[in-house]
Amino acid sequence: MIDLRSDTVTRPSAGMLAAMTSAPLGDDVYGEDPTANQLEETVAGLLGHEAGLFTVTGSLANLLGVQALVPRGGELLCEASAHVVRAELGAHAAVSGVTTRTWIGPTDLTQVSALIAPDLGPYFVTTSAVSVENTHNFGGGAIQHGYDALADELESRGIPLHLDGARLWNAAVATGRTPASYAARAAAASVCLSKGLGAPVGSVLVGSAELIREARIWRKRLGAGWRQAGVLAAAGLYAVEHNIDRLAEDHANARVIAEVLADAAPGSVKPDQVDTNIVIADLAVTGKTVAEVVAAARAEGVLIGGVGATQLRVVTHLDASAADCRTAASTLAHILTH
Amino acid sequence: MIDLRSDTVTRPSAGMLAAMTSAPLGDDVYGEDPTANQLEETVAGLLGHEAGLFTVTGSLANLLGVQALVPRGGELLCEASAHVVRAELGAHAAVSGVTTRTWIGPTDLTQVSALIAPDLGPYFVTTSAVSVENTHNFGGGAIQHGYDALADELESRGIPLHLDGARLWNAAVATGRTPASYAARAAAASVCLSKGLGAPVGSVLVGSAELIREARIWRKRLGAGWRQAGVLAAAGLYAVEHNIDRLAEDHANARVIAEVLADAAPGSVKPDQVDTNIVIADLAVTGKTVAEVVAAARAEGVLIGGVGATQLRVVTHLDASAADCRTAASTLAHILTH
Amino acid sequence: MIDLRSDTVTRPSAGMLAAMTSAPLGDDVYGEDPTANQLEETVAGLLGHEAGLFTVTGSLANLLGVQALVPRGGELLCEASAHVVRAELGAHAAVSGVTTRTWIGPTDLTQVSALIAPDLGPYFVTTSAVSVENTHNFGGGAIQHGYDALADELESRGIPLHLDGARLWNAAVATGRTPASYAARAAAASVCLSKGLGAPVGSVLVGSAELIREARIWRKRLGAGWRQAGVLAAAGLYAVEHNIDRLAEDHANARVIAEVLADAAPGSVKPDQVDTNIVIADLAVTGKTVAEVVAAARAEGVLIGGVGATQLRVVTHLDASAADCRTAASTLAHILTH
Amino acid sequence: MIDLRSDTVTRPSAGMLAAMTSAPLGDDVYGEDPTANQLEETVAGLLGHEAGLFTVTGSLANLLGVQALVPRGGELLCEASAHVVRAELGAHAAVSGVTTRTWIGPTDLTQVSALIAPDLGPYFVTTSAVSVENTHNFGGGAIQHGYDALADELESRGIPLHLDGARLWNAAVATGRTPASYAARAAAASVCLSKGLGAPVGSVLVGSAELIREARIWRKRLGAGWRQAGVLAAAGLYAVEHNIDRLAEDHANARVIAEVLADAAPGSVKPDQVDTNIVIADLAVTGKTVAEVVAAARAEGVLIGGVGATQLRVVTHLDASAADCRTAASTLAHILTH
Repeated sequence: MIDLRSDTVTRPSAGMLAAMTSAPLGDDVYGEDPTANQLEETVAGLLGHEAGLFTVTGSLANLLGVQALVPRGGELLCEASAHVVRAELGAHAAVSGVTTRTWIGPTDLTQVSALIAPDLGPYFVTTSAVSVENTHNFGGGAIQHGYDALADELESRGIPLHLDGARLWNAAVATGRTPASYAARAAAASVCLSKGLGAPVGSVLVGSAELIREARIWRKRLGAGWRQAGVLAAAGLYAVEHNIDRLAEDHANARVIAEVLADAAPGSVKPDQVDTNIVIADLAVTGKTVAEVVAAARAEGVLIGGVGATQLRVVTHLDASAADCRTAASTLAHILTH
Repeated sequence: MIDLRSDTVTRPSAGMLAAMTSAPLGDDVYGEDPTANQLEETVAGLLGHEAGLFTVTGSLANLLGVQALVPRGGELLCEASAHVVRAELGAHAAVSGVTTRTWIGPTDLTQVSALIAPDLGPYFVTTSAVSVENTHNFGGGAIQHGYDALADELESRGIPLHLDGARLWNAAVATGRTPASYAARAAAASVCLSKGLGAPVGSVLVGSAELIREARIWRKRLGAGWRQAGVLAAAGLYAVEHNIDRLAEDHANARVIAEVLADAAPGSVKPDQVDTNIVIADLAVTGKTVAEVVAAARAEGVLIGGVGATQLRVVTHLDASAADCRTAASTLAHILTH
Repeated sequence: MIDLRSDTVTRPSAGMLAAMTSAPLGDDVYGEDPTANQLEETVAGLLGHEAGLFTVTGSLANLLGVQALVPRGGELLCEASAHVVRAELGAHAAVSGVTTRTWIGPTDLTQVSALIAPDLGPYFVTTSAVSVENTHNFGGGAIQHGYDALADELESRGIPLHLDGARLWNAAVATGRTPASYAARAAAASVCLSKGLGAPVGSVLVGSAELIREARIWRKRLGAGWRQAGVLAAAGLYAVEHNIDRLAEDHANARVIAEVLADAAPGSVKPDQVDTNIVIADLAVTGKTVAEVVAAARAEGVLIGGVGATQLRVVTHLDASAADCRTAASTLAHILTH
Repeated sequence: MIDLRSDTVTRPSAGMLAAMTSAPLGDDVYGEDPTANQLEETVAGLLGHEAGLFTVTGSLANLLGVQALVPRGGELLCEASAHVVRAELGAHAAVSGVTTRTWIGPTDLTQVSALIAPDLGPYFVTTSAVSVENTHNFGGGAIQHGYDALADELESRGIPLHLDGARLWNAAVATGRTPASYAARAAAASVCLSKGLGAPVGSVLVGSAELIREARIWRKRLGAGWRQAGVLAAAGLYAVEHNIDRLAEDHANARVIAEVLADAAPGSVKPDQVDTNIVIADLAVTGKTVAEVVAAARAEGVLIGGVGATQLRVVTHLDASAADCRTAASTLAHILTH
């Protein structure tokens, strides 16, 4: 099977496994796992922040990061299909008591600014933070080009920015910018090690030393203060050292898939809008349903997913070679045209 | 002073006070206050619902109503300036763990439908309910004309509707519809007794008997299970019996104010969009600030409020006569033009 | 019917109703209700605190008071049958995220001290506050004689004390101490106006100005920021001015009832342990069940309640005269002996 | 250094590492990690339950298990020094809204029964579950001999039992009972893989299929739904297969340490009360402080911990040989007597 449902499906390579089994370990609850500590320092450094916290998922990194910026009953603004409001099971409200309002579409300064609630006294909700997902998963891996202008605006207003950087590495590789050029604008940022970078488990939250100290306590409170975390942190370190630059291959593969699909089903996808490793194809033009196409692809050995009522999502990654991606593209094109 | 900051500022009339002091009382925590019981039955009947619950505020009625429809981690959709997300201090998230996404502007079926998240399995947020505020406070007391179409759509999808009917009485009087013609479309609805209707304190939540039973327990859990509530319920009953039809006067007064302001500061307000008892005037065209105009009006004996950076809010009510409103309008017009 | 189920069942007297209808009113959400403000200042003064907040119930005053002292995930210690853990529906956990551990029986310094958790670093729960209910409702209205020693100990350790003073007035009258001599030891204290004092609705939370400012915001967040609260605050002021000293009558009446029951069913109650206005009689010695005795009393025109499996609770109050109480005692004695 | 601070400090053995690097992996969020699935089935089988859930910590397994049994605002009873109320940072209250009351000392049927709150109607807190930690960590690794009698009592009352079995393996090995003979009495039970069993990370929650389905969703909501979890699950499976029976060695080593300390500081520890792998020594008899002894031991190459004001905690485990333990015991004895 060629599995293009998500870049989370990758499995550790031989090199990564070797790193995992040879890493020095300790008890991370006591702050004594040298490999976890090294990972946290390395990623914080790469992202231009003081400190880092290794978390079991990107959702947890987001939960802890937002909670550090927004008090109970305070407000977070984000895009209406951002991961934090669509795919984290309402945890920001259910666990942290954070209320959210949303805009629709890319990060657009005018639109976001109109939503920001100034402080009107203690009986109105005030905007405590704004979250941007960059690249944007359900936005088809799109780079958020309005990110810097929004960061400027928020800075001038004294409102902290949260960066959901699950796929920040992709944005950096695609634009040639450093990850820090994005992340250092945010008061808290998360990055994922187990998506494009290929580690089996884990994300890192970065922020100030004080923010991370508090997040570490809440990580424990939420039952996610792991023990010999170094076995996984070693995979993360390996991923950061070996698998960032190669994301360019995933991007090229995604563009190939997009072009094949655009040829097969004109109007379903705009290849030049495929910024990174995610292709979202709208089946409305084809008369076919998502369930139908997903099932047909599976029968031909290609796994893909659906988002919403009419859209396919195809994600390229470390474990899908250029040849695999061409095969998958042909398979899908055939299904869409028959 | 002529106080037009809100219709919440009204004080009980002599007739209302007489009703309050002669009402039979009991302990409402034991369900034994006959006047509270009568109020709950009366309002439930007026709104086409099985049962009612008398609450200390409309915010509490909304909190209990939404919580009955949306599980922790579930999603409520509403307009971006709805009272539930702007003026209830994030309680739906902080207390009930409800996550929210928002649209901008009036209740528009297309826009709302695009936001509704279908059930994509346990790892995505699903829309559990949609809330509509009707009339819409920060929307200038606007009647939500898309309400029925949305109610139809939600019914067909099996998604419950929540009605924040703090000023539902105004919508009913302005359109000539019955309150029940709106409220019965919703699985839970709140109405306020202490805004236009002039009671000192209180709202009523209506819904099914089962929903109200659960809400009654949560009212107690939130510390709002009052004892001899009948003293206030009597005011509510009096208000419902005497003060609904007269809301037409408030609407006429608001229209007069709007016309005067539109003359004085063309473009600040569109009188034909003043559906009910709220006038929102945008000062952008005048070059004056909200703080400046509010202070000048206060100095002239007129109290008004601001919403957002550039908008005045003027609200007519039971304790502001037609003459008061004309005076206030002249005062404001003079300030805006000098 | 002679209703001795609780001292919450009292109804406003003619004098109190007159006070309610003549009180100046305003919008308490804006801090403009003069009568509510006066009540808050009066009670804060009586209790030796800087500021007060008028709340719809004692449960809400406790919820806001504890929340001000204990952070989410922090610990409150209290007696195992204290109102805060037995009769507030878990609100301290459900709303404020406060965890609790309990001791059994009266406030005893040794026992409580053994429970206090010192600060062992960020991964253990630390005791953030201790709550004492004085008098203790389910403890039979008992005055907590260990209160001062505990207050001393907590002061020396820097741990704040919370006083659930729903019936603090009774403790003060029974001991001849001032209410402030108790309440000023606590960082936050609640007192009730609608139990022995006879107001229809309401309690007051007292504390520092800063604590009350924060509690006022949370009162609004919980949907309990009422509008023309003065109509009820007037009843509270009347109650504080007229009905404190007369609690001595309730205490005498309770003692009479206890003596009659002790004669009728030796071992069921120890009259010299009836400190105030609550008599708890244990039916174990009688072979009768609570349900049976409650039903028989109701049939004879006397309403009483049960607590736990084998105990009756009889509560004297403003609306039960000495003659009523003697009648009720005779009725109960007859039931217990037949 | 000989590290006897906790049995959580163990590091994976060569055999365990080999298992980890050769395990088949998949995406556990999609339920497709074969090794995680196998671990969950294996442990559920060992514990006599339908289904299992692999969690990052025992704290998370407890959080999810208790939440499945106790609704928001509902009550959990447990011992006053149980891990769930002392060492999980108030998560049961802060995340799940569970209120707690506690007894002091071992699981004693009479004491626990007196605390159980029957259902007195919707306005009192009802006991929703009782949690027993077996063996009891802060109780010195004590086997809870009252466990079965309490389980019988709860079964007769229809109240579910929660078992915090972080060290259930130790109880089973020490008594010769099967783990299932304990765990099957509970509606939800957690067991740890990373304490005595030596896996680097992870616990398992077991219960009915329905309970585990719900817990899996909440695991995701709390940000702990990991991806290629099999790399750690493989360590857990290895631990379950290889490291249970050998816990008897840890128990023997702990007894040796206890005897040495009892000789050195009579009254500090009762060796015959050291049921399993934890020795708690009370320094009160020695005149020395915990900080002093811990520091002196560290200087001599022995790491131990403190619990409370006057107690040392010494924990034996897989990575501390019999010789290590004898050395540590001698070191401590020397410190206590000089």
